Amino acid sequence: AINRPGDFVTAERQDEPGLRFSVETNDPRIPSSPLENVAGHVALLMLKELRPGFGVRMILHKKMPLGSGLGSSGASSVASALAVNCLLSKPLKRTDLLKFAVEGERKASGSPHADNVAPSLLGGLCLVRSYKPLDVIQLPVSSRFIWVVVHPHIVVKTRVARSVIPQEVRLKIAIQQWGNVSGLTAGLISGDENLLRKSVEDTIIEPARAHLIPGFYDVKNSALKAGALGCSVSGSGPSVFAVTTSQKKAKAIARSMVRVFHRWTGAKCDVYISRVNSKGAQSLWVRE
Amino acid sequence: AINRPGDFVTAERQDEPGLRFSVETNDPRIPSSPLENVAGHVALLMLKELRPGFGVRMILHKKMPLGSGLGSSGASSVASALAVNCLLSKPLKRTDLLKFAVEGERKASGSPHADNVAPSLLGGLCLVRSYKPLDVIQLPVSSRFIWVVVHPHIVVKTRVARSVIPQEVRLKIAIQQWGNVSGLTAGLISGDENLLRKSVEDTIIEPARAHLIPGFYDVKNSALKAGALGCSVSGSGPSVFAVTTSQKKAKAIARSMVRVFHRWTGAKCDVYISRVNSKGAQSLWVRE
Repeated sequence: AINRPGDFVTAERQDEPGLRFSVETNDPRIPSSPLENVAGHVALLMLKELRPGFGVRMILHKKMPLGSGLGSSGASSVASALAVNCLLSKPLKRTDLLKFAVEGERKASGSPHADNVAPSLLGGLCLVRSYKPLDVIQLPVSSRFIWVVVHPHIVVKTRVARSVIPQEVRLKIAIQQWGNVSGLTAGLISGDENLLRKSVEDTIIEPARAHLIPGFYDVKNSALKAGALGCSVSGSGPSVFAVTTSQKKAKAIARSMVRVFHRWTGAKCDVYISRVNSKGAQSLWVRE
Repeated sequence: AINRPGDFVTAERQDEPGLRFSVETNDPRIPSSPLENVAGHVALLMLKELRPGFGVRMILHKKMPLGSGLGSSGASSVASALAVNCLLSKPLKRTDLLKFAVEGERKASGSPHADNVAPSLLGGLCLVRSYKPLDVIQLPVSSRFIWVVVHPHIVVKTRVARSVIPQEVRLKIAIQQWGNVSGLTAGLISGDENLLRKSVEDTIIEPARAHLIPGFYDVKNSALKAGALGCSVSGSGPSVFAVTTSQKKAKAIARSMVRVFHRWTGAKCDVYISRVNSKGAQSLWVRE
């Protein structure tokens, strides 16, 4: 989890049962029906299962861009789950909200993946160790790492980004990736900069998706030249992340990534610089 | 690395250049020529590259069984490298011996794998993060885990054990294994028993090799029933390891594994119980 960007939800109890749902957005692709919108879907599921004895009126203030690789649908799902939870007389534990939030992801993409909703909900560095059963481990992450995320305003179709993922991998390549996954895990826990430098290396998904992001390898090289320990695709792209241990370098890395993206695409970029956010989604205010 | 078993090498300088090499063993499969034996091969390579100005007379006291899945050739290679190093006027650092020791493995199996020689030489929990270039990371491992290794006296041909390994894996299965590798790494570092229980799970090699070890799944189930956190194949088998956090349980686990192995195969079993050995190969005595 990083600090920004995120979605906002306002929710209040209402006497009539069920959900009154609306969306505040400029993006016509965001569905406003509670049956189609992930936030509405999650809220309806919770009301159905938990039967709190009241209804909910909810507004999703949709801030995150769709198809960015930043976990937009996950953010809406988590915001909705947390908002409904705040209204309950006996709120559930955060970890018990996960099963509702992943249903938002299933609605959005057909698969109840937890890689966005888990950190968004729980904060920190989350390992989705297994799906059957769903098992999310919060790893103790060193606070020294600073994450740079650059989102160029171009569209990568999630459907296309998925279709390029191979269904089979050569064992040799998988073994390399096991080595890197283990090194990455150990490096993130211990704060070992050198280990991170070597282990932020994706031999499976990055090579398959790089060509969908104009200028990806140039952007990556510019980040590394500016001092990044590593750089790769965020989610299904087009956002790209880099990691460093210095605020000054983080800014320089972001500048150079934006410059290269702009040269390739002419697109505007959003930049987010953040340490790992350990809190996850927040309840900003509650009216008593 | 665990404390036992291991190989022994005695070595002394001699005036004539080159290597005088012999092996003390009852096993006729162990080559006694220094060109064919991994210990001789490693010593010759070191003498050739380091040109110490003297020759070496070496005896390999071969204690470890061949084809056990315990890293027998690795033990000989490391013992030889360390012994030659002790004779040098300016000994190399341990990490610099690794490149010689892996050549012993290349001799033994055609591939310079480091999974046995690295922990054998350096001690501790070693991650072979990459082979190109060779990069071994010593992970900080919790001392609470106790490892039980049972070696039934049956033969699994390494050639056969290799031939059953798939060359391709389904991405879905590889992803499960990434989750487990990350969980295993985090669990071994933090000492989290529950995480270890879930993560000692091999979805790739164990299913492929299990049928080569008579009674494997029975042995594994008996270990888990006796309280093991996890249990799987050691190396290419037939040895099987289990892990726990109590000495008492370790003994019960070993007893039950031996009993089941004996029922299936009638074979005698060796049992090794050990915490992670943090020192690696040791120089036992030096004559001044």
